[in-house]
Amino acid sequence: MERRLPGLAASSGLAFGPAVTFRAVGELRRAKGSVATEKQALADAVAAALQAVTALAGSLEGEAADIVGFQVALLEDDALTESAYAAIDRGMPADMAWRQAMAEEIAGYDISEDLYFRARSADLADICDRVLRQLFDLPELAGAPPGAVILAQDLPPSAFLGIDWSRGGGIVLGSGSPSSHVAMLARGRSVPMVVGIGSEWEAVSGTVIVDGVAGLVLTGPSQESIARAQRQASELGRLRDQAEARKSQPALTKDGTRIAVMVNVAGLADVAALPPEACDGIGLTRTEFLVEQSLRDETAQFGAYAGLLRWAAGRPVTIRTLDAGGDKPIAGYTLAGEANPFLGLRGIRLSLRHPEIFRVQLRALARAAAIGPLKIMLPMVTTAHELEQTRALLDAVLVDLAAEGMPHAMPALGIMVEVPAAAMAVARFDAAFYSIGSNDLTQYATAAARDGLEVASYADVLHPGVLAMIAHVARHGAKTGREVSLCGDAGGEPRAIAALLRAGIRTVSVSPGLLALAKDAIRGVDLSAPDEAA
Amino acid sequence: MERRLPGLAASSGLAFGPAVTFRAVGELRRAKGSVATEKQALADAVAAALQAVTALAGSLEGEAADIVGFQVALLEDDALTESAYAAIDRGMPADMAWRQAMAEEIAGYDISEDLYFRARSADLADICDRVLRQLFDLPELAGAPPGAVILAQDLPPSAFLGIDWSRGGGIVLGSGSPSSHVAMLARGRSVPMVVGIGSEWEAVSGTVIVDGVAGLVLTGPSQESIARAQRQASELGRLRDQAEARKSQPALTKDGTRIAVMVNVAGLADVAALPPEACDGIGLTRTEFLVEQSLRDETAQFGAYAGLLRWAAGRPVTIRTLDAGGDKPIAGYTLAGEANPFLGLRGIRLSLRHPEIFRVQLRALARAAAIGPLKIMLPMVTTAHELEQTRALLDAVLVDLAAEGMPHAMPALGIMVEVPAAAMAVARFDAAFYSIGSNDLTQYATAAARDGLEVASYADVLHPGVLAMIAHVARHGAKTGREVSLCGDAGGEPRAIAALLRAGIRTVSVSPGLLALAKDAIRGVDLSAPDEAA
Repeated sequence: MERRLPGLAASSGLAFGPAVTFRAVGELRRAKGSVATEKQALADAVAAALQAVTALAGSLEGEAADIVGFQVALLEDDALTESAYAAIDRGMPADMAWRQAMAEEIAGYDISEDLYFRARSADLADICDRVLRQLFDLPELAGAPPGAVILAQDLPPSAFLGIDWSRGGGIVLGSGSPSSHVAMLARGRSVPMVVGIGSEWEAVSGTVIVDGVAGLVLTGPSQESIARAQRQASELGRLRDQAEARKSQPALTKDGTRIAVMVNVAGLADVAALPPEACDGIGLTRTEFLVEQSLRDETAQFGAYAGLLRWAAGRPVTIRTLDAGGDKPIAGYTLAGEANPFLGLRGIRLSLRHPEIFRVQLRALARAAAIGPLKIMLPMVTTAHELEQTRALLDAVLVDLAAEGMPHAMPALGIMVEVPAAAMAVARFDAAFYSIGSNDLTQYATAAARDGLEVASYADVLHPGVLAMIAHVARHGAKTGREVSLCGDAGGEPRAIAALLRAGIRTVSVSPGLLALAKDAIRGVDLSAPDEAA
Repeated sequence: MERRLPGLAASSGLAFGPAVTFRAVGELRRAKGSVATEKQALADAVAAALQAVTALAGSLEGEAADIVGFQVALLEDDALTESAYAAIDRGMPADMAWRQAMAEEIAGYDISEDLYFRARSADLADICDRVLRQLFDLPELAGAPPGAVILAQDLPPSAFLGIDWSRGGGIVLGSGSPSSHVAMLARGRSVPMVVGIGSEWEAVSGTVIVDGVAGLVLTGPSQESIARAQRQASELGRLRDQAEARKSQPALTKDGTRIAVMVNVAGLADVAALPPEACDGIGLTRTEFLVEQSLRDETAQFGAYAGLLRWAAGRPVTIRTLDAGGDKPIAGYTLAGEANPFLGLRGIRLSLRHPEIFRVQLRALARAAAIGPLKIMLPMVTTAHELEQTRALLDAVLVDLAAEGMPHAMPALGIMVEVPAAAMAVARFDAAFYSIGSNDLTQYATAAARDGLEVASYADVLHPGVLAMIAHVARHGAKTGREVSLCGDAGGEPRAIAALLRAGIRTVSVSPGLLALAKDAIRGVDLSAPDEAA
């Protein structure tokens, strides 16, 4: 019998396929056998996990391949399993022995001073999980049939990356949030996703329809529902193909207003498949992953920024300085134990407290600016004093580079507008450009955390108070001749684009996966027509 | 030698007196003696704690006496110590045995469905601490000499309440925040307080000067510094006396503009010492403590609201509906485990999810409105829909009360403006009045948690963007003839009052302890003079 399970839309599109439920191994416990049985069970599980990971490593490229390669190396290392076997000798069942051995190993990585090892603790957790899944004979997601709908309470990003989405499929989560990391990945790859349906996912089997537009899941769908879903999916596919076909054409509204559309990236891999002429440059480069790996490595950072400038071939490349803190901790750099990290030390607040690390990034940026039109963008700016402190640091860096005879140039220095008080006081900020971070601005303006499922409905960029702040910034930009862009998810949302353009936004920056659809959504807006919403 | 320890001002005024350091017992461990020794040590410690608590209970009144009376009863109950003695028999040292026994007891209270017992777990933690202090021979704060300066890493509100502040004294904290509960208590009782000086407090002894105006601590002060502190303290005392003498006179600015000054309360005890004619009514009643004790008890709530209306003798009494969540959890009602509770489910968001509990409060409020001018104020309102949903619930409650023949009246229904998006969209809210919650509005507008010491400098009500939001709300109120008040701490801050009045605020509501000084600060403002800050 058909059942409708309402949730929240996290990634649009329509999927239907066989249900594959993905259970976490956290609470499972193994009945203990003899020491020999337990040792054999663990050995078999490790071998099976190693085989799966080796196969996965062969199918990946770039950074993802590196990550999985590291997992292969760890599983091949006997030192990792030694203490687990010793614990079995002392009478522990295989699963508990493995969990304990891995917990000790992970703790060692967690306290490491070296940020590279610190970041690897997530990989260890992944390995721990993979072996446990083998022990409990739970399927790995990588083995899901093509086009399957994955149902889970929550899904780690690594699990998402392990699935072949090239032949369709969708995601349904019991908890989760439309702003989670995995939801962003799903939108980037156009995988339909619905979150927050509660515990109902556990009992689902057979064919499932995921309606990522309406935020609805249908189980045991009728023939009629399946037919309707097929029609909708093919219509969405047609629209997507149509948008893709004209992706490289400029985005003009119906009345002929040219809207600049840039892309948000975390590195060169994100634009590997994108011809640079399809966009108006890079509107946001997130440097957290890059900088976490090379906090004090100017050369590595310079190389990454230079690569983006070369790709952009003369188009502007906007690079956001380190925006750690909030939901992006970096051990030894961000502050641990904040009761409300989103309202804590993050972005420019932290950079100014660590001038020795900030200086490395500013040097790399000023050097890369000699290659092409690089723009520096400061995150979480709250007071004009922060902008001026940064400008002074940048000036000092330029003097140093000149003295060293190192090629460099002065980048444009702009700010993210994502703190509501900064939006309303924008005239106090003497910045070269303003970029509205709509995700954070919305979460602060509505007092609703972007990762809080229960308050997701409050965090609405279309709240008239949020739009009033955006319009205030756009007016100031128009009056003073400075660019105002918008680089949050909202820029790629068809339901939001008309209101944003009416608020005065003329430049948006979206993830590369949304570029084509965002441009087509812009083409559907008529700014000369009266505003129906007003 | 004199040393200056800079910190953050948390409660103004100047104190100097002997240092009393207050160490937490958390990390201390006792060297184990024989079973007989350990049992005797525990028995002595419990007896000494009982004696101290009994003495304290005799010196208190009202609610504070009830709380301490409950602690006496618990300490007299052998069942509490029984399992600790059994653990000593099994070979545990006295401190560990006591900690473990109390942890089990507290866990039992924590999971209790009964909210009264849930709230008592804090008392158990207090008892646990008191006995441990005796075991480690650490002084109780209640024994501090009159006028002492208490130095600690952090201070629980219960410790503050156990100290006799009638003869002066001050507080210096290593961590802490100007917005913490204990800082609010200190301001209410005019106890000078400086927070955030770091670990330096541990080594302090001798005479200490606490400058709660400049946010500075002086240790080993020179004769000159002591003399200066005495002069400043006596000048502050003179100003305070002068303000107290004209507390009951209306607050007029220099140019003759009448400013209404109301008070913030949590119950009748807060205004026991205040003649109602000294204020223009109650601008904010926090109902969290009251309602936590009587979530479903309409009669108890009605009694409390009626008591305030009778005290106010015809002046308006504004009662905020339950503002749980954020930093005010109520077990079984608020959501546990939010990553950013200040950006989560709180205030009206929760009330609308628990209509059965909300209805009890609305019924009690509508009944009390028959006694005098009661105003209902909704916290954390984000969308106009929330206000309209509440109005519909209130209308239904009035119909029910009429059908029951229960005396009632329609209260004025207003909203707190503390969500930035609501401030900018204030014209969408058809409320009878608006009350700006400056503490929360500031924390959201500046993205800086009000309890985050590291970001305290960002959370500034004088940020031009925050003032712009306040001015926007005030303009809408003036245009539509609706009262706009401001009921956060800023209303009582001399440094903020001029800017708030210039932004258009004509009604403030402050804690009763700040009433006299707030009125005097208003008397120093000349609204006809040009704004020097602009």
